[in-house]
Amino acid sequence: MSNPINIAIDAMGGENSPYKVIKGIEIHSSNTNNINYNIYGDQKIIEPLLKKSNIKSKIYNITHTENYIKDTDSPLTAAKKGKNSSMWLAVESLKNQESDAIVSAGNTGALFVIAKLNLKMIERIEKPALSALWPNKIGMNVVLDLGANIECNEKNLVDFSLMGSALHKSLFENEMSKVALLNIGSEELKGNNIIKNTYQILNEKKNSLFEFKGYIEGNKIMDGDVNVIVTDGFTGNVALKTAEGTANFITSELKKTMNSSLLGKLSAILNIKNLKKFKNKLDPRLYNGAILLGLDKPVIKSHGSTDEIGFANSLKVSEKIIKGKLIEKIKKNII
Amino acid sequence: MSNPINIAIDAMGGENSPYKVIKGIEIHSSNTNNINYNIYGDQKIIEPLLKKSNIKSKIYNITHTENYIKDTDSPLTAAKKGKNSSMWLAVESLKNQESDAIVSAGNTGALFVIAKLNLKMIERIEKPALSALWPNKIGMNVVLDLGANIECNEKNLVDFSLMGSALHKSLFENEMSKVALLNIGSEELKGNNIIKNTYQILNEKKNSLFEFKGYIEGNKIMDGDVNVIVTDGFTGNVALKTAEGTANFITSELKKTMNSSLLGKLSAILNIKNLKKFKNKLDPRLYNGAILLGLDKPVIKSHGSTDEIGFANSLKVSEKIIKGKLIEKIKKNII
Repeated sequence: MSNPINIAIDAMGGENSPYKVIKGIEIHSSNTNNINYNIYGDQKIIEPLLKKSNIKSKIYNITHTENYIKDTDSPLTAAKKGKNSSMWLAVESLKNQESDAIVSAGNTGALFVIAKLNLKMIERIEKPALSALWPNKIGMNVVLDLGANIECNEKNLVDFSLMGSALHKSLFENEMSKVALLNIGSEELKGNNIIKNTYQILNEKKNSLFEFKGYIEGNKIMDGDVNVIVTDGFTGNVALKTAEGTANFITSELKKTMNSSLLGKLSAILNIKNLKKFKNKLDPRLYNGAILLGLDKPVIKSHGSTDEIGFANSLKVSEKIIKGKLIEKIKKNII
Repeated sequence: MSNPINIAIDAMGGENSPYKVIKGIEIHSSNTNNINYNIYGDQKIIEPLLKKSNIKSKIYNITHTENYIKDTDSPLTAAKKGKNSSMWLAVESLKNQESDAIVSAGNTGALFVIAKLNLKMIERIEKPALSALWPNKIGMNVVLDLGANIECNEKNLVDFSLMGSALHKSLFENEMSKVALLNIGSEELKGNNIIKNTYQILNEKKNSLFEFKGYIEGNKIMDGDVNVIVTDGFTGNVALKTAEGTANFITSELKKTMNSSLLGKLSAILNIKNLKKFKNKLDPRLYNGAILLGLDKPVIKSHGSTDEIGFANSLKVSEKIIKGKLIEKIKKNII
């Protein structure tokens, strides 16, 4: 049997924690094996939850701290006051080689600052990128950067292509990674100089991780023709949030319409199985977890508002990333 | 009775033209009065369609030309070869004071180049902006720039706020225009320097056209708290197209689910009235028409692929813009 994987878990961040975190571990651990969970947080609250769960005591360690970072703390306040916090200690366990990845549902800004303070960047990567999964018609896209860097140069975008493809390959090992640059037209002439130069570099330089597919427009993101979409953090953040807002708008309008008459209500009940299937496909918990790429250990941010199923999914993502040797893939391919 | 409004119409652009154009005029003219339509295109094809329609002959003029700009022409080719084209002649009628606005469903790039060659910019406006309607929970947003300018400075974004509000006020005269800058966070600290500086300018300078509401994130565009959303052409184009792609993705997934079982099909039929209501609310034909703002006459681009109902809606938009004195409003408020 190979060495177990160690996942560091900040148990105290996000809504309804540590309850959902422990429940998430229970779900994840029942579907896998050879994983250790290094749990950081308030032992008085965590231990009773663990005892009540089906999690075997030999697969977790608790490191006790009463200190944790609040969602309202600014990243800098968090970094200053947070050396004994559950988040800091969890990240530190990566630095000390005790854990292979960290998952937290806590304060995003604080997690990234604390990760950058404790962990090293991968050599020759200049900027870390925030990456996440985004559904398309036939599977999943990896999209980055989603907000870590407002402005990016050619080298950053090339790095993002490599890091995003390495992530894609770790998560979906049987698929070919196909990279496209997000732009406002599919013709070569469109876009700013940075995008055009990046196009040239990616078009000329072959690599083992991905196939370069040129530009992609916003309305094609979900078509499934490509699966790694690269952009700067400003555009990526606006695109992701706009998609989120559109999905919410449509589903709430649909709900309103379906319930606006007795006949509508009746047929919605008849159709409830199909509607559920539809809802499941779009369930945001399936895509839960943003990954900060560029550091030499995997840092995974679970949504603060997700539940135990969402948290379990981010644990699955972290497991795949470690088993898929994400960091090694990036290191091997970086220019 | 006041003087009639003259709308110049390029009858030859877009799918299924001039059929849909003439049908669109028929729909529009039956719901309004005191409008003249100056129609440019091939008389041999247009005249029989007009004769068969309910459009009274005294409310239109045809200017014959066999020359028209193809969708595949590059804007420059179009500008060079196009002096006798239906699009060029239609735009020229604005320059000659024969028409008050132009509507075309033809080649977008060509329309903008030909408009810029023939018409003057409004004094002190440096860049034209492409603007369109975007539904929100309680009404409509005006969003700009959607792709005319990849990079924008503070002055451009302030101009877009004024032009977008003037457009909003012309279209929805009883509503208060509320402007927000599209950004990746609602806190004052986020975003690049240009956005932060624009925030300061808009926050300090009061005006009669709109209320400034600060920043807005992509997921809030459809909430209805603001109704004029300002951004550069790169971000705006990506956001608009991403929303379009997301809407298509969700409705096609929904359709697939609803039809995946006999029960689903049955209840979808039962529910067809409600589903239709839903579809109508999201009908893109309602929001048809992009408006190029900044020129001293209104230039309206109808989608190439829309039908007669969509084309009629873009005629309605042009009528509202003229009656609402859009250009005067912009001139009066520009800094």
